[in-house]
Amino acid sequence: MRLLSSLLLAGLLAGGLTTAQAQTAPASFKTDSLTLRKIYDEALLRGQSYENLRYLCEKIGGRLAGSPQAAQAVAWGKLTMEKAGCFDKVYLQECQVPHWVRGAKEKGEIVGNKGKRISVAVCALGGSVGTGGKLRAGVVEVKSLAEFKALPDAAVRGKFIFFNRPFDDALIEPGAAYGGAGDQRRSGPAEAGRRGAVGALVRSLTSAHDNYPHTGATAYGDTPTKVPGAALSTMAADQLSQLLKADPSLQFELEMSCQTLPDVTSYNVVGEVRGSKYPDQFITVGGHLDSWDLAQGAHDDGTGIVQSIEAVRLLKAAGLRPERTVRAVLFMNEENGTRGGNKYADLAKQNNETHVAAIESDGGGFTPRGFNVESTPAVFKKVAAWAPLLAPYHADKLTPGHSGTDIEPLVAAVHPTALFGYDCDSQRYFDLHHTAADTFDKVNRRELELGGASMAALIYLLAKYNLQ
Amino acid sequence: MRLLSSLLLAGLLAGGLTTAQAQTAPASFKTDSLTLRKIYDEALLRGQSYENLRYLCEKIGGRLAGSPQAAQAVAWGKLTMEKAGCFDKVYLQECQVPHWVRGAKEKGEIVGNKGKRISVAVCALGGSVGTGGKLRAGVVEVKSLAEFKALPDAAVRGKFIFFNRPFDDALIEPGAAYGGAGDQRRSGPAEAGRRGAVGALVRSLTSAHDNYPHTGATAYGDTPTKVPGAALSTMAADQLSQLLKADPSLQFELEMSCQTLPDVTSYNVVGEVRGSKYPDQFITVGGHLDSWDLAQGAHDDGTGIVQSIEAVRLLKAAGLRPERTVRAVLFMNEENGTRGGNKYADLAKQNNETHVAAIESDGGGFTPRGFNVESTPAVFKKVAAWAPLLAPYHADKLTPGHSGTDIEPLVAAVHPTALFGYDCDSQRYFDLHHTAADTFDKVNRRELELGGASMAALIYLLAKYNLQ
Repeated sequence: MRLLSSLLLAGLLAGGLTTAQAQTAPASFKTDSLTLRKIYDEALLRGQSYENLRYLCEKIGGRLAGSPQAAQAVAWGKLTMEKAGCFDKVYLQECQVPHWVRGAKEKGEIVGNKGKRISVAVCALGGSVGTGGKLRAGVVEVKSLAEFKALPDAAVRGKFIFFNRPFDDALIEPGAAYGGAGDQRRSGPAEAGRRGAVGALVRSLTSAHDNYPHTGATAYGDTPTKVPGAALSTMAADQLSQLLKADPSLQFELEMSCQTLPDVTSYNVVGEVRGSKYPDQFITVGGHLDSWDLAQGAHDDGTGIVQSIEAVRLLKAAGLRPERTVRAVLFMNEENGTRGGNKYADLAKQNNETHVAAIESDGGGFTPRGFNVESTPAVFKKVAAWAPLLAPYHADKLTPGHSGTDIEPLVAAVHPTALFGYDCDSQRYFDLHHTAADTFDKVNRRELELGGASMAALIYLLAKYNLQ
Repeated sequence: MRLLSSLLLAGLLAGGLTTAQAQTAPASFKTDSLTLRKIYDEALLRGQSYENLRYLCEKIGGRLAGSPQAAQAVAWGKLTMEKAGCFDKVYLQECQVPHWVRGAKEKGEIVGNKGKRISVAVCALGGSVGTGGKLRAGVVEVKSLAEFKALPDAAVRGKFIFFNRPFDDALIEPGAAYGGAGDQRRSGPAEAGRRGAVGALVRSLTSAHDNYPHTGATAYGDTPTKVPGAALSTMAADQLSQLLKADPSLQFELEMSCQTLPDVTSYNVVGEVRGSKYPDQFITVGGHLDSWDLAQGAHDDGTGIVQSIEAVRLLKAAGLRPERTVRAVLFMNEENGTRGGNKYADLAKQNNETHVAAIESDGGGFTPRGFNVESTPAVFKKVAAWAPLLAPYHADKLTPGHSGTDIEPLVAAVHPTALFGYDCDSQRYFDLHHTAADTFDKVNRRELELGGASMAALIYLLAKYNLQ
């Protein structure tokens, strides 16, 4: 692209309401429009979230609940909030969290009937039991839990069940494909153990064709027999599937020394700005401080964390004091327990708090699209009226939909008026999700800062206007 | 992010019109909606553009007009169109193109007054004259052409003029910042030479803070004295600026062996599908086949090229024969001459062709947002009515605005009814633009394929409906 097109665009896209929008919008929208521009200016010109994320990713790194790194992240979160200079108080909320550790041994090999061994990329699923030494067995491939359930007991007993359902690439949202294929990871090992299989091998939950295995939580529920569950990279899964076609009697050898240790004390980190008019009405903004252990947890969910702190800082830097109380919350243990989210909701209920709204950012730090909204249709209509204010920033897609795992427990506990999930460009998220590739260098500074500014803009509007 | 949110979203985002949209839309929209879904399915499940791009980037690479690689790219383009199996005919359009070569020597050093030398990242601007050996002089820093023009002759004579205007990061569109800062690259060397300076050093046109110098065309116009122009990486520019503050008498030494050779014969590559009802009405879709020489020209504009071929293939694969004639055009020499774009328009005029519409993709292969539209307000209104059809794919942002450099000459030549510029997520484009970092690995498969599908969808609608 050369210069001319950009010159012509410059005038059109400098931000602010269009003339037509300004004419039809309520009078207060003009003030709001100027306020939002201040927020985005601060984010883009003097944003702090990118450098905060660099520290979290590169100095602390992967921080699964219960790990020493998670404890470091709690201390870092508290300090970072204090240094942001925008909170009236910063404090911790204690909770007990599960403590699963990967262990040093993690190896998978395809073993041919002539003893030929091919090492493939595997990782333990979070929460899996270990193999107790080397575990070797034949492999039965299925594409779904239903297909597995239809197999006779004799076919599955003593085998590895290889759940090889790929993402449905035709879906526009990779998150929808994740939803569709995810049961094999979540329930595959439990179902395999229930029927006498020795373990589960699960195709990584991604559209990407590469050699990263994707971890993530698996749950045994009330299964009497817990068998190990491992993720295979998509390349490894394709290779195993192909070799199985040629030799259905091949074996797989898995060795994993992962284990679950006793629960550990950990914390949510909370920063609070007291509302100027309605201090007893709360607006929460948050992401999750824990991450899987394989990488730096950059997009999942370091970006949500630093955006949540930044959103509150942007309000202050733009000279705004919210009329309602705003809390930034760094939730602990989203990935394998939601103990932090549950604790936050429990305390809110216990303290009889009135929660107006909550926003969660846990879909990566990519270019904003807008927000998913959980509310009544009447409340949604009020929120949707804000779209023109967000349009200059391409953050005006307001869609009824799910908000987030950590703020969801608030619904039953304190019945907030509306919950919001930050919605951003979703195409790359599952390339990185729960893998060693989820690192700081995958985050673009401007995309991240635009997200934090969009969250700040929504908080500003929520703190000013009565949604009910 | 865990599983629950995605499961809930799956239902909402599976594509197609919402119930409300379907109820208010014209009856034909239902058919159109299903047709678009077929197009996107083909792209996402069996898309070919990503592998085509891999070949172009990794086997041919940088392909500036006049270079042997540009000739290879022409042959590749013709073959790729023929292999796509969707065109009735594939042919070349001859044009003469400029032939500028970078040369082997390209070096910049800051020289302190005690002789200390610091090597910095520089590259010649496209079209620049060489230095004829080592060129050493003092440096005068300015932030704009206006500031330069206000300086007395004595201050600039015999110096390097260091144009150090940064991107305006507050602008939401990096393209607008490019527009704002771009005159220093385009005209800086010409203006410097006009006033007796020995050369121009230009801050790279990007928001990124890294060590990649960004090349791009500079033009001397009728300047009697041509002096060399070089881009400095933003890190180099910041370093030079800082050192100048400490020591205004420091010098810069530049050595570049670039030169302009005689014009060369080259070609646009054109693939054509004859319209079933209105074969004499043309719809053009294209990108530019040439790229700067420093890298692989992946996002600029390999993605536009492979999307243009793919858009036509998708139509055929979805079982559609367009009612109007569709031409995919791989334009030659967009980067430093637009000779291909001009030739295409000249031939269209010469042949008295009726051009209904043209689409250009030259803003990178990122996630779709929609299209910029150049047309009368009445035509724009018709186009805007298609937004609900594109909404399930997040490609529904239809905005009056500039289309593209290569299709623009059609306006004066044959007065097309509407021109379109493919509009996609723009935040990362200028991190890579015209640098060694613009490589294949920066392109995401799904983002690329969604773009090609969006272009195919627009062609389908343009070929079916009368815009006038």
